[in-house]
Amino acid sequence: MPDPSSPPLGTLFAIGGAEAKLRRREVLRAFVEAAGGAGARIAVVPTASSLGPEVVEVYRAVFATLGAAEVVALRPESRAEAQDPALAARLADMTAVFMTGGNQLKLSAFITGTAFGDAVVATHRRGAVVGGTSAGASILAEHMIAFGGSGSTPRQRMSQLSVGLGLLAGTVIDQHFAQRNRYGRLLSLVAQSPSLLGMGVDEDTAAVVSGGTRLEVVGRGAVTLVDGRHLVSNAWTAQPTAPLLVSGAALHVLPAGSSFDLATRTLIGHHTAVADVEVQETRAAEDDLRRLASEIAAEGISPTSYARHLRRGRRGAQSG
Amino acid sequence: MPDPSSPPLGTLFAIGGAEAKLRRREVLRAFVEAAGGAGARIAVVPTASSLGPEVVEVYRAVFATLGAAEVVALRPESRAEAQDPALAARLADMTAVFMTGGNQLKLSAFITGTAFGDAVVATHRRGAVVGGTSAGASILAEHMIAFGGSGSTPRQRMSQLSVGLGLLAGTVIDQHFAQRNRYGRLLSLVAQSPSLLGMGVDEDTAAVVSGGTRLEVVGRGAVTLVDGRHLVSNAWTAQPTAPLLVSGAALHVLPAGSSFDLATRTLIGHHTAVADVEVQETRAAEDDLRRLASEIAAEGISPTSYARHLRRGRRGAQSG
Repeated sequence: MPDPSSPPLGTLFAIGGAEAKLRRREVLRAFVEAAGGAGARIAVVPTASSLGPEVVEVYRAVFATLGAAEVVALRPESRAEAQDPALAARLADMTAVFMTGGNQLKLSAFITGTAFGDAVVATHRRGAVVGGTSAGASILAEHMIAFGGSGSTPRQRMSQLSVGLGLLAGTVIDQHFAQRNRYGRLLSLVAQSPSLLGMGVDEDTAAVVSGGTRLEVVGRGAVTLVDGRHLVSNAWTAQPTAPLLVSGAALHVLPAGSSFDLATRTLIGHHTAVADVEVQETRAAEDDLRRLASEIAAEGISPTSYARHLRRGRRGAQSG
Repeated sequence: MPDPSSPPLGTLFAIGGAEAKLRRREVLRAFVEAAGGAGARIAVVPTASSLGPEVVEVYRAVFATLGAAEVVALRPESRAEAQDPALAARLADMTAVFMTGGNQLKLSAFITGTAFGDAVVATHRRGAVVGGTSAGASILAEHMIAFGGSGSTPRQRMSQLSVGLGLLAGTVIDQHFAQRNRYGRLLSLVAQSPSLLGMGVDEDTAAVVSGGTRLEVVGRGAVTLVDGRHLVSNAWTAQPTAPLLVSGAALHVLPAGSSFDLATRTLIGHHTAVADVEVQETRAAEDDLRRLASEIAAEGISPTSYARHLRRGRRGAQSG
């Protein structure tokens, strides 16, 4: 069991699901960079997924394309398998753990509190990146959202908590937030447990937490925070399915470029982001055209060698 | 033009659309009661609707069933018609105005600032009830939501304001709130104009405002308030369609039984509601069965006279 008194050191990536894998891969690119870029050794944990090797192959291909040195799949498929010390030991030289989407209750049931789960926590504490998408994001929290209905209005017994890995204390992480209309279920959990900070992560968006408290946002959507410390609610007495009273919650919607202090629950700042990948891509295309023109002007060039040349140029630009 | 310095006296009903018209008509029943019950004289204004007499007939039937004395339809179909003093004069002896759903820009275009629109405002100031559902709710506000996209995450230029009747100052009223996932568009308006209080009303739910500031909630859903006074946003500079920063908004989700002070923007209280119509109905059914059993035991009774008897009994119970 890792020592809970030592501060967490690694960066956490809570990704809201459906992160781009082919174009504008901002979220996964940021993950690989945080994991060490060309030195990244990433353990993909597909336990939550009902897909077999397919999901591993997708992430292996994306992480390799983004320049990671090594990608291994570690898939405990039962609590007994997750108790295998040999499996847990394979995390020792990884720079990152990435948990796929699927069913977070499978992660909670098979991993939390096992040798493998404890090894993930230890990996984080020694400074490695730990993250996941969808189910793999929710499991990071101490109190994990298990499931729930959709809809904007919070209702009694709309959602349930289970036990997560505890890498982010005092926070409950929901995902696919805007896309599946999950205000209601997040509010219902915070209404029942106002000490929790509710965090809803949109698709193709990551809540990136460093040093345990500094939240930054990457990607195309937003991270929504509901701070329930001062709220008044009737969640302790309302009838099942009745809409819940939630008065006085503080709401923060944070797009890319935002930074937020999770300890004081205040905005640190916002910069209108470099995130404008469209501008970057347009500039790159303009550069390509300019080079092409000058090269054609200088001498003949074959289409194949030009394409190779372009690929080299793009790769250089991306890693910068 | 009514005197803007005198306080508004009548009760406002902002209904979130799709209010029940056949069973459990809590919202429309509360409207008729506020309009004077058996003394209610209600002007139905179907201007927003693209349906013709059908929509009038629906409300005429429901209001009559709920005991209103008189229901008249007043339908200005252009700005010129709305300037007709004879039409405006017909509001003089009404105890309530009810605006149907449809397109609120039609109400803004045809009514706001006309003789008829001013007469609606004057009707409210002399103590009559003014309300509406869906489009008819949005038009009540000073700053009216004109249209917008759906989704939980606020985005730049997602929604637009137009000019409403001004019966509720400093508030923008959205409707079908939970059902159409409208957090984003309401937040985007409040982010642009943090002085506004954003009000999102669920379907089959009413925000009932008396004395200009006291909000009470009736119906099956909730009224969501977004208080932007202390928020930080980048709405003045963000790129079109980019998700918006909204940090530090105060959020209130108010189900039936809640009361809220719109002037101080604080919760007054909440009682776990009489709203449990199901319990009332079950009890009424049990009473019916008990009476039936005792009546059958005492003497023979014809089905017709029994049905009449039941109707009388139910009506008595409802108005109590």
